[in-house]
Amino acid sequence: MNSTYTGWLLIPTDTGVDLAPGWVRVINGIITEVNTAGFAERVEFGDDSTLILPGLIDCHLHIPQFPVIGAGGLPLLTWLAQVVFPEEAKWADADYAEAVADLAATRLLSVGTVAISAFATVHAEATQRAINVMGRRGLRGFVGQSLMDRECPPELARPAMQLLREAAKLEQCSGIYPIITPRFAISCSPELLHGAGALARKLGQPVQTHLAETRPELERIAELFGDEPYTAIYDRFGLLGPRSLLAHCIYLSPEEQAIINRSGSVAAHCPTANTFLQSGLMNKGAMEQAAVRLALGSDIGGGYERSMVRVARAMVETARIVALESGDAEAVPSAAQAWRMITRGNAEALGLADAGRIEPGVRADLVIARPDPEAFTSPDPLGFLLHAWDDRWITATLLQGDIAHGQIPE
Amino acid sequence: MNSTYTGWLLIPTDTGVDLAPGWVRVINGIITEVNTAGFAERVEFGDDSTLILPGLIDCHLHIPQFPVIGAGGLPLLTWLAQVVFPEEAKWADADYAEAVADLAATRLLSVGTVAISAFATVHAEATQRAINVMGRRGLRGFVGQSLMDRECPPELARPAMQLLREAAKLEQCSGIYPIITPRFAISCSPELLHGAGALARKLGQPVQTHLAETRPELERIAELFGDEPYTAIYDRFGLLGPRSLLAHCIYLSPEEQAIINRSGSVAAHCPTANTFLQSGLMNKGAMEQAAVRLALGSDIGGGYERSMVRVARAMVETARIVALESGDAEAVPSAAQAWRMITRGNAEALGLADAGRIEPGVRADLVIARPDPEAFTSPDPLGFLLHAWDDRWITATLLQGDIAHGQIPE
Repeated sequence: MNSTYTGWLLIPTDTGVDLAPGWVRVINGIITEVNTAGFAERVEFGDDSTLILPGLIDCHLHIPQFPVIGAGGLPLLTWLAQVVFPEEAKWADADYAEAVADLAATRLLSVGTVAISAFATVHAEATQRAINVMGRRGLRGFVGQSLMDRECPPELARPAMQLLREAAKLEQCSGIYPIITPRFAISCSPELLHGAGALARKLGQPVQTHLAETRPELERIAELFGDEPYTAIYDRFGLLGPRSLLAHCIYLSPEEQAIINRSGSVAAHCPTANTFLQSGLMNKGAMEQAAVRLALGSDIGGGYERSMVRVARAMVETARIVALESGDAEAVPSAAQAWRMITRGNAEALGLADAGRIEPGVRADLVIARPDPEAFTSPDPLGFLLHAWDDRWITATLLQGDIAHGQIPE
Repeated sequence: MNSTYTGWLLIPTDTGVDLAPGWVRVINGIITEVNTAGFAERVEFGDDSTLILPGLIDCHLHIPQFPVIGAGGLPLLTWLAQVVFPEEAKWADADYAEAVADLAATRLLSVGTVAISAFATVHAEATQRAINVMGRRGLRGFVGQSLMDRECPPELARPAMQLLREAAKLEQCSGIYPIITPRFAISCSPELLHGAGALARKLGQPVQTHLAETRPELERIAELFGDEPYTAIYDRFGLLGPRSLLAHCIYLSPEEQAIINRSGSVAAHCPTANTFLQSGLMNKGAMEQAAVRLALGSDIGGGYERSMVRVARAMVETARIVALESGDAEAVPSAAQAWRMITRGNAEALGLADAGRIEPGVRADLVIARPDPEAFTSPDPLGFLLHAWDDRWITATLLQGDIAHGQIPE
């Protein structure tokens, strides 16, 4: 579809975002022209109440957990046992898995999410189906088979060698690629962690895992691995690097932050999950001072919020609460920084050079919205849009210029 | 309109809510029959994916601040000076005020809010217009003229006697009543506070004000009133009682909590505003232990969230964060308690005996919604609905059985 859209363009920059009246020309699924000199007339869609933003990106989520969002409000390890593992066990049925993945794709596109890094389950066939569904629905990014060979229900544990064989056979579908996904060091034997690191290197695949989400998790890690710092375990097994996503990272010593910094790994901040499971508050300012690369994830279903806009809002709110104690108001992200994080920032974390941007040559993965008009006359439009975000504003989510959710009125 | 609606009924009880398949019969704007023995067939609207809940109630908000939601992210006193007072000054133009009040009514009804306790501004005519607009739009509750005779921009200050004369003349419109509204003790001279208390008694009107929202506010109170505890000031001027709403109440000594408890006043918890303005986290569990009556408010625009469902979610999240430090997980409200708070709980706080309920004889102020179907098959439907709430689910908001927002398909 070749089209021109006009409205307020939310354009990520090196440090934040600009909001400017303009228009975007899309030809064959690619943005070919961006003009910020004012609204255009007589174009396919848009006016001075329209908002055009890059499709949003979610750097950490669990596809099988969409049906159990908001359940329990239990601490992590109890919640895994009582809510999550029973649901993930259902993925032994690959048809069920495919249906849940399709539902998840629908929900993601409906909130404007166009790229992901996601966990599937321990089941190989179900994982391949999830990759295929997400790829066919037009999302981009990564879906991985969750690797577990211990400390989980027997029906979800697999021998390490089997898991590594299965994970090696997973195939890309369209824009969705496999990713090496050891769940976390508690549920992975040293043999499995070693094999996972080796497999990532051999196949040139990225890595995603969890790190330092809760205190009881740290205690179990100490029982299993002794004095070795949690982060150092992943480092020893070759699981860190510029293409590694480490979810949560709440409880890290300065030494561990330094390991992450040196490796170039990305910490995926999950503010909604961190409160829902009462895990703790990640100190984003401290991570930035340690020069750790940061991304943002919904962590569905430990997180309950599917909209990355409200996850970004929760990131700002968490930073405000942390600043209440630290007194460091400078560490609170601006609305512009929050918008950048869920677009270009997360795209960079996933290594997607042509995502999260509005500029010539990138894919036309866009969200077209019609916010409450007072947003644009408010003293702080980016703050209004971030804080009062209403998914009813979303007119359509476009993937390569085609409508993947909603509709564009004639 | 006489109609029958079927679906999952969210029915507030003494301690929480029940979620049961059933139907509701509405005749002449009143619920005449409630049946929870299963879904009905061949009725006007609804099925097993429909949710029917009482209209939501917002116990603290500022009507003039809808156009400045999410602006600044500044501390309270700076935010008042830079964002709020300039906007409220525009209410010198009563036509502007009426337009903003109408916008606010539209936004409130669109998120299912049917009853409020709200601040207007210091302007008498604008306040009367806001009362009239909210009343004509069919909302219920209270709107008050904000009383300030000091410590605010000169264009927003009025002599105490003028304010008291003006406030005494405000008239009810339909279901919206005037409420005595000293903004807070900083912006009210002792003369004004005294007069406000006397006026409330004379006219039999309720009272709303702010109390103990931020530490800098406490410091200024100490400079103005000396050693007298903040709460005791309001008590001395006759501003406390079972029909008094005290917004925020973050920083209260046990003695002050006891004063509030003895007076029967209601503390209006505003969790989203408390983080947005970095005021602090109210310890809901401690307030409950002190047997203080509690209500919940959006506090638009110090709060950014117009949906009371997400304000309730923020209440739970704040309690989870408080519990992280206190270790008292028992103090975290359940999803059922959160749903009760924004329906029957807030109705009781406002003294509206026939609101916030689904039972024969009460007004048919209802929200009809069609949530994502997986909500009802999830292990915790009330938790799913609370945490994943999407305003796109709202089919219609009914006031006395008539559609005030949305539409009911034929």
